[in-house]
Amino acid sequence: MTRQDGRTFDQMRPVTIETGYLKYPHGSALIAFGDTKVICTVTVDEKVPPFLLSRPQPQGWLTCEYALMPAAGLSRNQRAGYGNTTVKGRVHEIQRMVGRALRAAIDLKKVGSRTLQIDCDVLQADGGTRTASVTGAMVALEIAVNKLMAEGKITENPLLTRVAAVSVGLHQGNVLLDLDYKEDSAAETDLNIVMTSEGGFIEVQGTAEKGVFSAAQLSDMLKLGETGIKRLFELQTKAIERARR
Amino acid sequence: MTRQDGRTFDQMRPVTIETGYLKYPHGSALIAFGDTKVICTVTVDEKVPPFLLSRPQPQGWLTCEYALMPAAGLSRNQRAGYGNTTVKGRVHEIQRMVGRALRAAIDLKKVGSRTLQIDCDVLQADGGTRTASVTGAMVALEIAVNKLMAEGKITENPLLTRVAAVSVGLHQGNVLLDLDYKEDSAAETDLNIVMTSEGGFIEVQGTAEKGVFSAAQLSDMLKLGETGIKRLFELQTKAIERARR
Amino acid sequence: MTRQDGRTFDQMRPVTIETGYLKYPHGSALIAFGDTKVICTVTVDEKVPPFLLSRPQPQGWLTCEYALMPAAGLSRNQRAGYGNTTVKGRVHEIQRMVGRALRAAIDLKKVGSRTLQIDCDVLQADGGTRTASVTGAMVALEIAVNKLMAEGKITENPLLTRVAAVSVGLHQGNVLLDLDYKEDSAAETDLNIVMTSEGGFIEVQGTAEKGVFSAAQLSDMLKLGETGIKRLFELQTKAIERARR
Amino acid sequence: MTRQDGRTFDQMRPVTIETGYLKYPHGSALIAFGDTKVICTVTVDEKVPPFLLSRPQPQGWLTCEYALMPAAGLSRNQRAGYGNTTVKGRVHEIQRMVGRALRAAIDLKKVGSRTLQIDCDVLQADGGTRTASVTGAMVALEIAVNKLMAEGKITENPLLTRVAAVSVGLHQGNVLLDLDYKEDSAAETDLNIVMTSEGGFIEVQGTAEKGVFSAAQLSDMLKLGETGIKRLFELQTKAIERARR
Amino acid sequence: MTRQDGRTFDQMRPVTIETGYLKYPHGSALIAFGDTKVICTVTVDEKVPPFLLSRPQPQGWLTCEYALMPAAGLSRNQRAGYGNTTVKGRVHEIQRMVGRALRAAIDLKKVGSRTLQIDCDVLQADGGTRTASVTGAMVALEIAVNKLMAEGKITENPLLTRVAAVSVGLHQGNVLLDLDYKEDSAAETDLNIVMTSEGGFIEVQGTAEKGVFSAAQLSDMLKLGETGIKRLFELQTKAIERARR
Amino acid sequence: MTRQDGRTFDQMRPVTIETGYLKYPHGSALIAFGDTKVICTVTVDEKVPPFLLSRPQPQGWLTCEYALMPAAGLSRNQRAGYGNTTVKGRVHEIQRMVGRALRAAIDLKKVGSRTLQIDCDVLQADGGTRTASVTGAMVALEIAVNKLMAEGKITENPLLTRVAAVSVGLHQGNVLLDLDYKEDSAAETDLNIVMTSEGGFIEVQGTAEKGVFSAAQLSDMLKLGETGIKRLFELQTKAIERARR
Repeated sequence: MTRQDGRTFDQMRPVTIETGYLKYPHGSALIAFGDTKVICTVTVDEKVPPFLLSRPQPQGWLTCEYALMPAAGLSRNQRAGYGNTTVKGRVHEIQRMVGRALRAAIDLKKVGSRTLQIDCDVLQADGGTRTASVTGAMVALEIAVNKLMAEGKITENPLLTRVAAVSVGLHQGNVLLDLDYKEDSAAETDLNIVMTSEGGFIEVQGTAEKGVFSAAQLSDMLKLGETGIKRLFELQTKAIERARR
Repeated sequence: MTRQDGRTFDQMRPVTIETGYLKYPHGSALIAFGDTKVICTVTVDEKVPPFLLSRPQPQGWLTCEYALMPAAGLSRNQRAGYGNTTVKGRVHEIQRMVGRALRAAIDLKKVGSRTLQIDCDVLQADGGTRTASVTGAMVALEIAVNKLMAEGKITENPLLTRVAAVSVGLHQGNVLLDLDYKEDSAAETDLNIVMTSEGGFIEVQGTAEKGVFSAAQLSDMLKLGETGIKRLFELQTKAIERARR
Repeated sequence: MTRQDGRTFDQMRPVTIETGYLKYPHGSALIAFGDTKVICTVTVDEKVPPFLLSRPQPQGWLTCEYALMPAAGLSRNQRAGYGNTTVKGRVHEIQRMVGRALRAAIDLKKVGSRTLQIDCDVLQADGGTRTASVTGAMVALEIAVNKLMAEGKITENPLLTRVAAVSVGLHQGNVLLDLDYKEDSAAETDLNIVMTSEGGFIEVQGTAEKGVFSAAQLSDMLKLGETGIKRLFELQTKAIERARR
Repeated sequence: MTRQDGRTFDQMRPVTIETGYLKYPHGSALIAFGDTKVICTVTVDEKVPPFLLSRPQPQGWLTCEYALMPAAGLSRNQRAGYGNTTVKGRVHEIQRMVGRALRAAIDLKKVGSRTLQIDCDVLQADGGTRTASVTGAMVALEIAVNKLMAEGKITENPLLTRVAAVSVGLHQGNVLLDLDYKEDSAAETDLNIVMTSEGGFIEVQGTAEKGVFSAAQLSDMLKLGETGIKRLFELQTKAIERARR
Repeated sequence: MTRQDGRTFDQMRPVTIETGYLKYPHGSALIAFGDTKVICTVTVDEKVPPFLLSRPQPQGWLTCEYALMPAAGLSRNQRAGYGNTTVKGRVHEIQRMVGRALRAAIDLKKVGSRTLQIDCDVLQADGGTRTASVTGAMVALEIAVNKLMAEGKITENPLLTRVAAVSVGLHQGNVLLDLDYKEDSAAETDLNIVMTSEGGFIEVQGTAEKGVFSAAQLSDMLKLGETGIKRLFELQTKAIERARR
Repeated sequence: MTRQDGRTFDQMRPVTIETGYLKYPHGSALIAFGDTKVICTVTVDEKVPPFLLSRPQPQGWLTCEYALMPAAGLSRNQRAGYGNTTVKGRVHEIQRMVGRALRAAIDLKKVGSRTLQIDCDVLQADGGTRTASVTGAMVALEIAVNKLMAEGKITENPLLTRVAAVSVGLHQGNVLLDLDYKEDSAAETDLNIVMTSEGGFIEVQGTAEKGVFSAAQLSDMLKLGETGIKRLFELQTKAIERARR
């Protein structure tokens, strides 16, 4: 049995990662999970937030902002700064998750007194924008780190691992990999998983939108998610290799 | 071996739930998990947000706001509206989680065209404010629903279950229940669990702050969390019974 | 003749002052004027606002913020930072009054280059929140100053006096002490008085909500207010003594 | 003995009230208390705030905003909306006082479902801006009411009285009328008085900036203030008569 | 003599217009003027702003927002809603110009009671973002109008003309067409021109950044601009034809 | 043939420039173009924005803010900071234009590390507020510069020229000088011109509100504008001479 778009339950949407689309940021990646398209950029700011200045040992910082472009979804997303001065809760939740995931991949003590500013801007949203953001931002981060090392600004490679993320869902008794927007709306339980390339978990966020889920179901979802994430690590590797050339 | 405050690894802090502390809101509970103290209130607003008005079937709404009082923590929390016009990301993340947890406990179609506004105000923060908020807000919600039914505004009981929440952590090879602030800062992995009184999961949020965690460790943490949550359901039951009298 | 709650016209509501309710701030007092409950805290910040830095002689600063908790009153108070980015005028008026009253009690030149941040958070509002705030904040301030002196951060006692405040009103020809919310709404004239423990006036704010008042009526109100404030000084003294033990 | 600008202690600064300076608002008055210059305008808005709509009897509303022009004072006042999104506490305190004073002069039930928007914009600030605002806004209000009656929008005169305001201060044992900026900064006690043309008090706000004040001193200040306010009522009468012609 | 990038003075950068890049908005165009890349979208909102509701004849509305993506330029552009609650002046100036230009191309009385929301989001900024925005938004607008007509929501074609825009500059005695960022920074005078496809001017904005310009120089710049705009009309025509197929 | 107010097409409204109206700012001018009245002030701030600090050669800064007073126009302008936290686009467009115009008149390298803050506050708006602002602010700027030189803070005269501005419009085949509000609303094309006293153009902003305009019409408008601006330079000269005495 297959899904509405013809995929099997354990199949991801077509994933593409394009690097070098933008010329100004230190690193960038335009990632697509099916119709979901996110531009991930890394801008280097040669200073750190004030709270880090008082620490005994100098260290860098990494922070993330996430936004939907106005025409990214079915209905228009109102821009910040036009009456709505506050960033929405969902946006905060996502950018905090992306930031945590990427900080797990890097030793900020080796970055120097600079901030790696990640921006994930969603051009089109069709489900999985946060998992595409983590996966694409990792590519942009590695490209930026490579550039900083080539520039001699960083001497020791600060990257500890790679991270990638995928969503899994429960729907009518089936476990589905990489939900698109329609599937995400219909699923009873939605799970987002961030892993390292060595296979450890960085973050597991499971939410029952309807009913509840059991420990056994959680276990099944984690196993399926792991297979998807392995595929993403292969695509990340290829994209970073292409960017090196 | 025990913890700094003398607890065993599988022991919760002393939990108290006081109801009836405030006279204006429909329901209220002052909950303490050790030194963490949260006032949870439910205010009933006889209207719903605009996006619900266009739905074919009328239904109610439930939303949550969470805040730290200025002197709740080690350093003062700046109030919103004094230069910092935006609510912090962590606050958004928590109040979205509390709202989702409580919406899982109630059938909003039976609530009528009204909003149940949950407020969780942290008087003192010593770890576990989000789990204490979920657990205390459930008590305030049931009291408020009982009052609405006694007033004849709701005719059919909309409550589907009770929910409660606890944190679990990994620290130096041990699995710890109900982390206080110091433990939370030291733990390598931090897991928040929301369950229903029937034993199903509503939300599982695990984050590796240092290193990674494995599927087996996640399973151990879930099991320990479940024992703590069972204890919280007993305390909720007693508090709600006291409030009825 | 008596009032709706059984008090005589010259009688205050039951007043309680609990200290030591919170563990983090330098000083705290939970004060109740009847059903009005306010948590007053003093947090010490080891710096001063920029405009003080240019003064020839170093001095400290004292500032106050006042807020109603969302469920403190008959209808819910919207939190700052959720669409309403501005603090309401009434809140500004009250916190400026509390700050002025407490600055009259302290010689900031003896405080050192630090800020004493007063926070008055109203848990429940039933009239007289500003007068309860002044009276409770004075207790929290003295406890905080005592702690700073015990810590050796302040060497000379900066307290010049104690201050306390009460409201008085005119209603149908009667002069009433310490108005509750219903009385405050009905009164033709409302007067707030701040005095020092030596009996001098710090602030007198009288407003005719309906009609006008005469100099003779103002004089009567001031005399009755003075009797109430004397009682408050006794209760402050006891609370501070309890906190010392 | 006289003051720095040559006035006796019981003498006001030269007061001028110019009407008809602006062509668009329903009423306007450019008032000067010495070098203090305030443009007071009344704009009529043919609707009322939402909270009035639910009242059984339709009524009008009157509200006030007060602002300092950027170059009104010794140092530049930052404009709202340029980084500082919040209106300062002092501004709130003043505009609330002006609004209360003018609402005491009018029966809003006779105004119809419209809002009388008072704006007091300070062109130059040299002490007494709030008392000049009350006094000038009263003139603009009466002109606006006369115009509304001439237009047939209001049939019954809603004005109950006239109001005017003045400041009094205590300085080195003297009681001074109508303080300018330097005197206001030096005075130990500062009192603002709003009265009706029949001689009743609407508002009395006395604050000890240094030390305390006694009931006897308060009484002396009130008496002196009353003489100043009587003079202002004469000037208001003349200005309104000139505007009628 | 040629320019730094090899162009002659009267030569535009390579211009590409890609339609159909996004699936949700009614119309979209990804336009590039050399390295300047702008996504232009048209979202249809089935209502109009309140001020239009009171007009005797129903009509539609067209409005524009313009933004730079964080990594669009040499240094990172701070996002609105993160401390900087206000939209910058330059952004306002540009989006007002784009809106005016497009409103000149359409008869809003034929659009019905709906708003055409234009969004111009700059992915990469290398000079000429406002002229690329006008030119690309015109394509997106015509696609959106065609879709509304195909949907039967609009019956009569409201488009009156097409508009396009280009920049011209004076630099060291030369008149340059379509300035890139470096040229724009160096030019003494900068002129932005919006024209209709019939050859009339909609907007002419000339600014001397250094020194002044004469009427003769303005005339020369207008003539050169016209040749560039003619080329843009050819590219618009082709893009719209491709989108129809 | 003449205009509604009796002027010929090439005639400006009566222009008056009053200096010395305010005592605090370094320079001020109250300018009227007919019923349009603008207070222009120059406040000197002894520091510069951070982005200038890193420049090799120290230099000053000049910036402008523009605002309409609430009662300046036909309908009330809402103040910033009362719900509307953002400054409107039109305001940004105008204040940017005024700032650019005045920066063209001054060599900021000769001003020292200080900011010349221009404020243009419109007391009454009847068309041409931006051109009156440029013309009046030039007078206030020269007075402020003269004062800085008299104080010895600036040693070398930084003024390079004078600037003035006027509007011209096309209406029913006629070219009109200095449009009032009604004419501005009716005109098909509206042109704002800023020139130096030597006759060069600083800024030309022409917009077709209805239809289009041709190069020949633009040329006619520029010529008529130049005659008006010459008259303004005469009035500026007289005002500055009066201020010197």
